[in-house]
Amino acid sequence: MLDRNSLTTGQLVREACRRGTLTEQTSGLAAGFAQANLVVLPQDVAYDFLRFCRANPKPCPLLDVTEPGDPVPRQVAPAADLRTDLPRYRVWEYGQLVEEPTDISHRWRDDLVSFVIGCSFTFEAALLRAGVPVRHIELGRNVPMYRTNIPCQPAGLFHGPLVVSMRPLTPADAIRAVQITSRYPSVHGAPVHLGLPEQLGIRDLTQPDFGDAVPVSATELPVFWACGVTPQAAIMTARPPLAITHSPGCMFVTDLLDETLAVG
Amino acid sequence: MLDRNSLTTGQLVREACRRGTLTEQTSGLAAGFAQANLVVLPQDVAYDFLRFCRANPKPCPLLDVTEPGDPVPRQVAPAADLRTDLPRYRVWEYGQLVEEPTDISHRWRDDLVSFVIGCSFTFEAALLRAGVPVRHIELGRNVPMYRTNIPCQPAGLFHGPLVVSMRPLTPADAIRAVQITSRYPSVHGAPVHLGLPEQLGIRDLTQPDFGDAVPVSATELPVFWACGVTPQAAIMTARPPLAITHSPGCMFVTDLLDETLAVG
Repeated sequence: MLDRNSLTTGQLVREACRRGTLTEQTSGLAAGFAQANLVVLPQDVAYDFLRFCRANPKPCPLLDVTEPGDPVPRQVAPAADLRTDLPRYRVWEYGQLVEEPTDISHRWRDDLVSFVIGCSFTFEAALLRAGVPVRHIELGRNVPMYRTNIPCQPAGLFHGPLVVSMRPLTPADAIRAVQITSRYPSVHGAPVHLGLPEQLGIRDLTQPDFGDAVPVSATELPVFWACGVTPQAAIMTARPPLAITHSPGCMFVTDLLDETLAVG
Repeated sequence: MLDRNSLTTGQLVREACRRGTLTEQTSGLAAGFAQANLVVLPQDVAYDFLRFCRANPKPCPLLDVTEPGDPVPRQVAPAADLRTDLPRYRVWEYGQLVEEPTDISHRWRDDLVSFVIGCSFTFEAALLRAGVPVRHIELGRNVPMYRTNIPCQPAGLFHGPLVVSMRPLTPADAIRAVQITSRYPSVHGAPVHLGLPEQLGIRDLTQPDFGDAVPVSATELPVFWACGVTPQAAIMTARPPLAITHSPGCMFVTDLLDETLAVG
């Protein structure tokens, strides 16, 4: 039986993944280490995807991009192997989910490029440290996420709507959350919206498109951040012959300390 | 006839006041120079007022406090004379407005202490530079201000409600405004509230307690900042034998550049 409390660093989490003892979500593991979204694509579509990320930095903040065929994210975890060091992956062929393995070595090719994309876990830790409560964490749920009516900047094959995550906050906490998350531009940064979900084309907060609903009280505002599911939605739309991503919640844990991602 | 456009520095504005050629409001004068609220009190109540400002820094950010009897604010304008260098003053006796002169030399005493308090003009200039529109400036009105149900921290004689100013902004501009005004803690800093005015005890935004109403559209949120009228309200409640303040809109223009008040 794996003792999750023993996984106190990025390296220890990755080793547990590599041994096959950790195959579940990584929330709460290796506190203080930045976790990340993973997108793996063949080189022939990677250039378009890189342009997509550059043009849409709030949903797609890049922490690392590997050389073709190289499974090592040298900027964020130089001893890691992206083929084995996540708990679980999703393999997509022409936009269809075909496999959810715990290791992608059998799928690896010399032309695959990996994109390591910042994740909101980093700023949620900062919110909690500042005493700003995070509802879905309190309730033990996944964050609610919504497709918006705001199109991303398209790039080649890749296009699609901005996907946002939502956290309900009192007005005073919402102001504090803008201040705190503004310090973390490489993990989605400041909110993109607050208070008027209909302006994003969101008609019913109780019906998220991804994740779990959470209650919003009459004394709270819904606060929306750009979400790392946005690039996955763009990949599903682009339908490349092959794409590999992390499985939801099963993130790549880097060697970066959350605080090294803070500006100011 | 005074050419307002010629008053490009704090010193030039103050000289026009001293000559008696400027007796009207200072909005838009000496662009880039910080303007300030003035409160003058006898020394025997000044200590309580200083404690009130320290305990309530968002409505009462102190830029300077003079020595008793000294009319020169040495930190913010060492060549100024606070008795002559504002366009117009208000003189209060036991909380009642008794006089609105353009010079207070005839009222000066050796025991008077002057408090120079930051003013929102500085952060409004920063908002405009960032392309965030400020409704009451667009409409040529005074900013709408409201008494809230939030009590200030009392200190000796001085107590009263927090007074807030309101600027309607789209959600995206509200987020940007939190970021921008957070950089200016000495001129009220970040908003204290947004979106849910009833939580502040404000029932009708069209009926401000001070200043002029401005329209808030259905696509905007009302955003509230702590306001420099708060200390004036506390003085009216405390009813000291003598108090002198600036007349609304007729601010003291300092030698400080707005940008020297920015942090980060």
